[in-house]
This record gives sequence, C-alpha cells and structure tokens, in this order.
Amino acid sequence: MKGAFYQGNKSLRVGDSPPQPPASGEVRLDIAYGGICGTDVHIYLGHMDHRVRMPQVIGHEMSGTVAEVGEGVTEFKAGDKAVVRPWVPCGRCPACLMGHYNVCHQINVLGVDTPGCFQSSWTVPVQTLHRLPDDIDLKLAALVEPAAVAAHAVRIGQVVEKEQVVVIGAGPIGILVALESRLKGANVLISEINPFRIDLAREFGLEVANPKETDLPAHVTEKTGGAGADIVFEVTGLAPGAEIMTRLARTRGRIIIVGIFAEPAPVALGQFFLRELRARGVRLHEPEDFETAIPLVASRAVPFEKLISDVRPLERIQDTFEEIERGANFMKVLLKCRD
Amino acid sequence: MKGAFYQGNKSLRVGDSPPQPPASGEVRLDIAYGGICGTDVHIYLGHMDHRVRMPQVIGHEMSGTVAEVGEGVTEFKAGDKAVVRPWVPCGRCPACLMGHYNVCHQINVLGVDTPGCFQSSWTVPVQTLHRLPDDIDLKLAALVEPAAVAAHAVRIGQVVEKEQVVVIGAGPIGILVALESRLKGANVLISEINPFRIDLAREFGLEVANPKETDLPAHVTEKTGGAGADIVFEVTGLAPGAEIMTRLARTRGRIIIVGIFAEPAPVALGQFFLRELRARGVRLHEPEDFETAIPLVASRAVPFEKLISDVRPLERIQDTFEEIERGANFMKVLLKCRD
Repeated sequence: MKGAFYQGNKSLRVGDSPPQPPASGEVRLDIAYGGICGTDVHIYLGHMDHRVRMPQVIGHEMSGTVAEVGEGVTEFKAGDKAVVRPWVPCGRCPACLMGHYNVCHQINVLGVDTPGCFQSSWTVPVQTLHRLPDDIDLKLAALVEPAAVAAHAVRIGQVVEKEQVVVIGAGPIGILVALESRLKGANVLISEINPFRIDLAREFGLEVANPKETDLPAHVTEKTGGAGADIVFEVTGLAPGAEIMTRLARTRGRIIIVGIFAEPAPVALGQFFLRELRARGVRLHEPEDFETAIPLVASRAVPFEKLISDVRPLERIQDTFEEIERGANFMKVLLKCRD
Repeated sequence: MKGAFYQGNKSLRVGDSPPQPPASGEVRLDIAYGGICGTDVHIYLGHMDHRVRMPQVIGHEMSGTVAEVGEGVTEFKAGDKAVVRPWVPCGRCPACLMGHYNVCHQINVLGVDTPGCFQSSWTVPVQTLHRLPDDIDLKLAALVEPAAVAAHAVRIGQVVEKEQVVVIGAGPIGILVALESRLKGANVLISEINPFRIDLAREFGLEVANPKETDLPAHVTEKTGGAGADIVFEVTGLAPGAEIMTRLARTRGRIIIVGIFAEPAPVALGQFFLRELRARGVRLHEPEDFETAIPLVASRAVPFEKLISDVRPLERIQDTFEEIERGANFMKVLLKCRD
C-alpha cells in the first residue's frame, strides 16, 4: 500500500503507507482516484508549511470504495462507493456553536491539517462520507468534491433562472460554477485570459470573453440592457479580478468571492455605495452541497469528463507537480492511487 | 428672500434667491433650518464641480413649512411642517425599473444636481415631502435626513436585539447608526480616534474604543466570547476603516459600507473566504426610512439635540465652511435660512 508524502522543499515522495484499521466510528476506504487541487499546489510550493506536519500524505479530492468499517458503523459496508467531505469541524468554537461548521475557527481540513487521500487506503470518520451510486464512474466521481465547492457557491449566490451570471476565471472551479449556474437556467459569461482555458470553456458551450481583448464591463452592460450582471463570481483570487468585479454588477447585485486571496486587494468600495452592491465570501461546502453535486456528476448533465486533462499513476506525482509549477495547461489531473 | 450660492473656488455667496412659484405637482417650502453635511463640504472643496452647475444653491438636509402648493397637490397645505427626501429618480433606467430608486443610474440629488435648501424658500416635487408632526422642534427636524440615512443602514443591516454591533467612525451618521442600533436592542461599540467625537459619543452613553490605543479586533473578539461582531458598519470611507472591518466580523457576519470611498481601498478578501463574510453597500435612503426616522426624532428617544454643535444665520455659511476646512470640532451645524 502506497502514499505520496509531502516532505517540504517541493518534494513529494511516494512510499509505503500502511492501511490504518478503522477505529470506532471510522471507515477505511480504498482510494480509486485523487484529484489535484490548487490547494495541493500551494502545499507543494511551501505556502502552507505552517499547517502541514511533514512528512504527510496530502490530497483531499477523491473517489473510492469502503474497504472496512469500524465499530458502530452501520451506515456503510465494504464495497459501497463513496466520496469524503474533507473537513471535520471542532464542534465547540463560536462558529460551530452557530452551526457554521464549514468556517469553524479550528477546522481540520483532511489532506492539509491531517493525512489526505493520495494513498491506496484512507481511514476517515464516517460522518465525512457521502454515498455514491453503484454505477458511477469513479474517475468522474473524483470531480464530486470540486463540484460541491461550486454547488456551495451557486447555492449561496442564489442563482435563479434567466439571471445574468459572470464568472471571473475559468479554472476547474470557475468552469463548474459556470456550468452549475447554467443548469439553474442562468445566462452565463465566463471571463478568462488563458487560451487553453478559453478553448476548454468554449467546448462546454460557454460564452467566454477575454478581458484583455474585450471591454468586459461595457460588454456586460450592453448584454444586460444597461443594468449589469445579477451575480458575479470572483474565482481567481487575484487583484485584477477584485478590480473588475465591482464594475460588472447591477444595482444591488451579488458578488460571490470564491477565489482565495492571499493578500488584500484594492476594491472600489465606492461602487458598493453607488450601487448598493452585496458581496459574500464562500468557503468549502456543506453536506447538502455534496447531495447536490453527486447526482449532478452521476447524471452526466454536462460532459464533466472534459475537465479531466489526464489520469496518471500516483508514482508520477512529483513530475506532475513540477509540470504544473512550470505552467502546464492542465485542468484537472487525476492520480490513480491503487494498482 | 436669500440663498447661499456655491460659485466654485471654495466660495459660497449669500444673495437674493427669489421664491419659485410651485408648478403642477410641486410645493414651495419656507425653510427653517438647513444642516451642513459632508457632501456639502465636498462641494465646497470642489470635488463635485462636475455635477454642480454654478452658481447654485446647495444643501439637502432641512426642515420647513409648506408655504404654497401647486396645481393638483392635495396631500399638503400651507402651514404643514415637512422635510424633503432630497432625491428624484429618473424612473426609467434599469435600476428604477427594478424599483431600486435610491440607486437610480441618473439620480437627481437635490442640492447637488439641482438647487438645494440653503435658501429661504425651496420649491420641490410633492412626492419628495414627508410630513412632520405639528409639535416637532424644527431644529431637531433638520436631523431627520441624516437619521433616515442611518435608519436605512440599520434596516439593510437587519440589526436585531442582542447582536454585537461595531460602528467605525463617530461622525453624525456613525453616531446615528450607533444610537439607532442601540434602540433595536443591540450592544454597540463605536470606534473613533478624534477626542471631540469620542467625548460626544460617550455623552450618549455609547461605548467607544480608540483603535490607536486599543487593539480593536482583540477587544471585539474578547467581548464576543471569541466570535466577533455580528455587524460592522464602516462609516469613515477611509482606508483604515476598510482595513479593520474584515477583522472585526464573526463568521457570516455582515459588513455594511456606509462611508463614501473616493478611492479603491485594500480589502482582505481572504477573510471573506475564511469567515464567509457578507458585505453590503448602502446609499441614501428609501421613503420608509423617513417614516422610521421622523417618529424617532420627534419622540426624543435619545437627546438628538446634542448632535447640534451650533445654529448660525445663513450669512455665516462661508465662515463656517472655512472653519470646517480648518478642522473645527463640529458635529452638526444648522443654518437658519429665514430671518
């Protein structure tokens, strides 16, 4: 049984990772596929060394099958397909006491704060599991976690039919937000500058604008009869996204901050005043977002498989992260965690 | 009949301003008192020369008495006390078509885009009038407009009993937001660095912290058992307010942007993600906010008269603006517009 251990200094070593027998209330999963997320790249680059205890198996997007259940676990049995909602709240902080578990002050993110899924066998608390349909393709199922992040953003954004949505950034989460908004009946425009991502977004039939070539605020104003977008999803976490987001939204429009900003960014708060704009940050997901994402992915409502750029054996993890660091055009790379 | 005309170059000339007979649907008011607002100071300083047609009577906070009504006006008669909601929406832009009149794309702000109330007699559309009780003190009534701005912010902020509110900035609007939040049953802390404003806020029995002397985020965290504030009102429009606001709010807390930011300011959007913060800009007021503010001011629920730093004849307007420019410690100065 193998696992990919982050050991600092941009190094991921694949080595032996013995299965952990499930304790009471735990489940041991055989991991089929793990998906590489931007957060994993941040770990690789050393940005999260204050949280990761090295050497540690990382990864939090996955699909798998129940191998073994601990004492008292009756909800799942060996052979059930499942995904993990990769975080455990402390249950006792002021956020948890209000039921805001996904923004727990001491949240334990699996694959960051504790061992993750880039290994053959992963033991987790049963309450983090969501059941998959038996006939789901486990490659597609590895997209459930990012699809749940997008479902959370779309739910909090309260996207409804016929609204004009603008998504800033066509990475995996941006495209999933765009696709899930379109499934709600919204008109969706996605803003992206990278030609590979632009082409991929267009393969899904999404309208794409490149803000380096198009005056995006003028285009959105014109598309909406002068009103502006009902909802803007900022999914880049970068200053140009923060700059443009306030120029796209209509009066009382909603701006949903999905991107993770490492640094404060200049924001035209005067536009918040002039248009009574609303903004809301979203983080991770809540259980119901998995219950939305699973049937969505299983239904193949859109060809989600187009998001999978490659499927590689776990042994290629170091090479793959190096390629990503060099700017390779990947959308989602899956790691095959078992032989 | 006199009026104070802004003529550019920090100059306000008091001269003859003949009464305008009310046209159909209009009302001519005798103005009792006009209140000086920060917006008037911006006009004086030349920041709004692109909107003000010089020479023009400015001013938009006032109290008065109906002098004369135009054809078709049956709602008011001569002698009725009234205040004006000083803006007229275009009725036809995308914002108006959604009913967002106070954020109309082509809003006409009386006293900015068209003549204002710093004159003995002011003629306005009847639909901008709100009736005052007969026995109201017209000095206090001149505070209704800023009290309605605060009522709008508190209503949009959805302040409820026992919530922890932090107000950043103890100018007239900040103090009114604090007082109106306290009347809703909230616990209120106001942040201010100016000693005069700190003292005045304390005279109202408000808890005040000076963020130059107190670690405000630590203080709010401690006051709230580690949670953070339910609602933060940013009422300075300045970068330090934008910096600190995200460090005061609890998970899913509300930040209400009341201050007018002339420039983009750095905002820790990463906190929006970590805590799923919500922000909302507020502008001006809606009619119902006057219907909240009028009985509030009339009831003397708090000693609003403490906000009135001085009452001066209109002839002293130039001196007064010069004093304000030099940093005089005024809260609200009223101008007596009739002899």
